[in-house]
Amino acid sequence: MKPKAFVFDAYGTLFDVHSVVLRDGNNIAGDPHAFSALWRQKQLEYTWLRSLMGHYRDFWDVTEAALRSAVRQLDIKADEAQLGRLMQAYLSPSAFSDTRPALEALRGVPLAILSNGSPKMLEAAVRHSGLESIIAEIISVDRVSTYKPSPRVYALGAEILSLPAADILFISSNWWDAAGAKQSGYRVCWCNRSAAEMEFAEYAPDLTVTRLDQIAHHC
Amino acid sequence: MKPKAFVFDAYGTLFDVHSVVLRDGNNIAGDPHAFSALWRQKQLEYTWLRSLMGHYRDFWDVTEAALRSAVRQLDIKADEAQLGRLMQAYLSPSAFSDTRPALEALRGVPLAILSNGSPKMLEAAVRHSGLESIIAEIISVDRVSTYKPSPRVYALGAEILSLPAADILFISSNWWDAAGAKQSGYRVCWCNRSAAEMEFAEYAPDLTVTRLDQIAHHC
Repeated sequence: MKPKAFVFDAYGTLFDVHSVVLRDGNNIAGDPHAFSALWRQKQLEYTWLRSLMGHYRDFWDVTEAALRSAVRQLDIKADEAQLGRLMQAYLSPSAFSDTRPALEALRGVPLAILSNGSPKMLEAAVRHSGLESIIAEIISVDRVSTYKPSPRVYALGAEILSLPAADILFISSNWWDAAGAKQSGYRVCWCNRSAAEMEFAEYAPDLTVTRLDQIAHHC
Repeated sequence: MKPKAFVFDAYGTLFDVHSVVLRDGNNIAGDPHAFSALWRQKQLEYTWLRSLMGHYRDFWDVTEAALRSAVRQLDIKADEAQLGRLMQAYLSPSAFSDTRPALEALRGVPLAILSNGSPKMLEAAVRHSGLESIIAEIISVDRVSTYKPSPRVYALGAEILSLPAADILFISSNWWDAAGAKQSGYRVCWCNRSAAEMEFAEYAPDLTVTRLDQIAHHC
């Protein structure tokens, strides 16, 4: 049965988080891939730890703290102006090449974003990629002050769209996000861009693709 | 004021988690440090993700799942017998050289463990290092079915010891564990063995040492 809505994760799924360092960090010495990977890892760790501690800070704050930690741990020489430019660049990550074609092919039912990002970050990213007219709803975890994969986040998505989770196809490239949505009753598509594995086998996705533009063939 | 009890984290604090691979994985090809680091990282990620999802599995299961994931991700050739030996070795991690002298110097008030480990794992590790007569209480997160740094874990420690958290010195080498204990009102000693940083600055420890046997000088 065709889903009544498609809900997308943002970072890593629609937008390439590594585009920030690779595009706007080219004046920073060191291995940009290692730097971007550690920035991302710290960012996620902080969302999980803060959620578990019940001490929410929004994704902008978490992303900046993660940036500063990655810079210190890798002993990267970056001044405040360079760090400021990287943070500004996080407002305009590049969309993957398959993002727009995939979204256009799925139009006809509501397309939404459910993301860890703060409202300001998500609105900026959507605008930068010219997706405002395609994305009907931007839903930020900020409304429930906790992060994925808390079940409160996935409940929020279904609630805002006024649909049962089982009528929604949730799409994420992050295996733990796909697992969290599956646990909360969504139909789930895992967009496995990097030949990763579903590490929690009990939450196997309903559909696995390697590019977003493969989804329309299945729905 | 002298603490009325000392509560120790186990893995990374009293016991060297990396001793498992370095001591019992020497027949496995590849970089043992990278392998051990990824095993540990996956183990922690799974505890955080499962706690956030509200889907607890005990530390033995999580440790085995993390081992299998690390082996697959690093494309390590290890058969079932080798994996089984590594898991068995996790029952007898080596104590750090400063562990026993530190504990002996602090005797006189109750010394306890508060750890992610399952009761079986913790009892085996304590017995292997001959610390049964020194450790008065082994407290496993298993009693509350969630992992550090959930406040429920730290509340359990104070409850079992029948002491206010402020009368207990909690000691951990894991910065996020030290932060979680601080958030829950413990006096906290961070045993910073690896020149790391306290990544959540708002939960600065009361005391920072680099070896456990420095604690007695401050108490």
